[in-house]
Amino acid sequence: MKKINFYSGPAVLPEEVLLQGQEAIRDFAGMGLSILEISHRSKEFVRVMDEARALVKELMQLKDNYEVLFLHGGASSQFFMVPMNLLGDAETAAYFETGRWAHLAMEEAKNFGAVHVACSSKNENFTHIPKKYNVPAGAKYLHLTSNNTVYGSQFHWWPEVQCPVVADMSSDIFSRQLDFNRFGLIYAGAQKNMGAAGVTMVVVNKELLGNVKRKLPAMLDYRVHIEKQSMHNTPPVFPVYLSFLTLQWIKKQGLKKIEERNIQKAKSLYDAIDASYLFEGTVAKEDRSLMNVCFRFSKEAKKELTEEKFVAFAAEHNIVGIKGYKTVGGFRASIYNAMSEIGVDTLVEAMRDFESRA
Amino acid sequence: MKKINFYSGPAVLPEEVLLQGQEAIRDFAGMGLSILEISHRSKEFVRVMDEARALVKELMQLKDNYEVLFLHGGASSQFFMVPMNLLGDAETAAYFETGRWAHLAMEEAKNFGAVHVACSSKNENFTHIPKKYNVPAGAKYLHLTSNNTVYGSQFHWWPEVQCPVVADMSSDIFSRQLDFNRFGLIYAGAQKNMGAAGVTMVVVNKELLGNVKRKLPAMLDYRVHIEKQSMHNTPPVFPVYLSFLTLQWIKKQGLKKIEERNIQKAKSLYDAIDASYLFEGTVAKEDRSLMNVCFRFSKEAKKELTEEKFVAFAAEHNIVGIKGYKTVGGFRASIYNAMSEIGVDTLVEAMRDFESRA
Repeated sequence: MKKINFYSGPAVLPEEVLLQGQEAIRDFAGMGLSILEISHRSKEFVRVMDEARALVKELMQLKDNYEVLFLHGGASSQFFMVPMNLLGDAETAAYFETGRWAHLAMEEAKNFGAVHVACSSKNENFTHIPKKYNVPAGAKYLHLTSNNTVYGSQFHWWPEVQCPVVADMSSDIFSRQLDFNRFGLIYAGAQKNMGAAGVTMVVVNKELLGNVKRKLPAMLDYRVHIEKQSMHNTPPVFPVYLSFLTLQWIKKQGLKKIEERNIQKAKSLYDAIDASYLFEGTVAKEDRSLMNVCFRFSKEAKKELTEEKFVAFAAEHNIVGIKGYKTVGGFRASIYNAMSEIGVDTLVEAMRDFESRA
Repeated sequence: MKKINFYSGPAVLPEEVLLQGQEAIRDFAGMGLSILEISHRSKEFVRVMDEARALVKELMQLKDNYEVLFLHGGASSQFFMVPMNLLGDAETAAYFETGRWAHLAMEEAKNFGAVHVACSSKNENFTHIPKKYNVPAGAKYLHLTSNNTVYGSQFHWWPEVQCPVVADMSSDIFSRQLDFNRFGLIYAGAQKNMGAAGVTMVVVNKELLGNVKRKLPAMLDYRVHIEKQSMHNTPPVFPVYLSFLTLQWIKKQGLKKIEERNIQKAKSLYDAIDASYLFEGTVAKEDRSLMNVCFRFSKEAKKELTEEKFVAFAAEHNIVGIKGYKTVGGFRASIYNAMSEIGVDTLVEAMRDFESRA
């Protein structure tokens, strides 16, 4: 029996994407070959790459000055590629420090220029997103992490600043309707809402490029990948294909419906948490993530309850992946686009069941 | 009907690897989840990563001072990661310029230190591997490309030098028995002989690391990946799994048998070329690659023959991927480990057939 998968990423994928992926390993596009064996220069794969890029432009309704790239390396590589391409040695970039990944992105930028911490919720264990922030005049960009996978907070508003905003949207890309043109650069590892591990999407306003003096290795220069249409070297063929399939699935649902479903799923879960005496949410209500629902046992809950006990109880209900991040503890239910309402209902029921027996 | 796949990479994979890959997309390791959806921190995947690294150590009979990494980014990322990690600003590295990829690796190194061209066959269109070379005293390393995918030459000897040798083995890794401990660093994109596109193996003598002064982004620092056992960020899970499966297949065959088969397959094809009046090899005989067999119409061949005609004729025999590299022309049959003797025989027959009708 298939498990109900609350992992934070790599994460649940739409069933049809899995089936199409399997079929492409057997025979891709009627080529008589597996997708794992074909030349990335074959017209069949070039079409996949082109259509994947076009789907992103369409879903985001991007203006002509934006380019879409599919790159190797994970979002962690964007932590340094962003400053490497955008930030001069003597220039300053501002960073919102709202979680673990936001912090790591900031640390990497320090190798390339000056970093200004626009705000930080580190001292409150990243349980909220600061509403007060300070971005210095002349900052080259402001970097933020739109959704905080580890601690479960999410931006539901956007800072008003003079400089371009760079957003790591790895854990909430295509989960809601947004004016994507308000960002200068958006990046996202695929393995949460747009495919499997091994490929990263970058959307960039190309007017921001070409201003730094440093020499860039070809593989780290966005302009090279733009010119070569994400084919400078052999791309991660199968991960790109899975993103293409997931983008098709997203288009079929529509971002509006996806957003509505995500709001409804999160509401079910947060309502259950708030109605419970055993569980409590860990994040300021107005900053709660629709993707990663973090909770823990409330102080009033019986002291003898161990987290392992609830994890084991959930497993009996076919539920996996709800342990909190290793340095955080508690529980985390990641409910990305491909998580069904039934999956969420099963977890809610398990929580109620557990509470009634506790 | 399944095509006979002579693509240069991504390339033919063992049938059992494809079947196991498909099955893992349905259900991985009895987890009740697809391998595309599981946490890379799950014990089931950590085991895959650990065993893949151990298999490389075993197959290469590596000494304890070597570390094995599976990284994002393709071999093209190693073109700059090698000098970034090994070459100081004021130091010199020597490069064998024996083909397109060797040239590109050399170009990337120039961003980090001085580059000395130890030898070059560029003026002879890379049709041989120079036997005379000059490596300056004090060179930090000598870089070579063990097999030249584009032009079809291969090292069948190794330069005797004082410095560590760095080898790009992307297109002949695990195709033959070697004393791998004679290299300081070996890298290989997986998509030819050890899996599918999207992951790159690096084998490094760790004693070579930590000597450069420059600051390295975490994702570009071999030491970080060694410390984190190739799990610093989310690895390309499925490509790593395919490499693991391919490594198991290689172990089952044994490198000795694989080498014997590769010698036999190449001999069949080169013998057919040499016996033909229509076709001729393009590479000096002693440097011919056992992996990428490059040939073209001989000058004596009828002038009205177009290359397209033979490609189309081969296609009628179920053969794909024999067009030469775009900037080279002619034909190239890539006969990696997973290419069967029957596949090679079919091509040889098609060449004879074509000649008899020409």
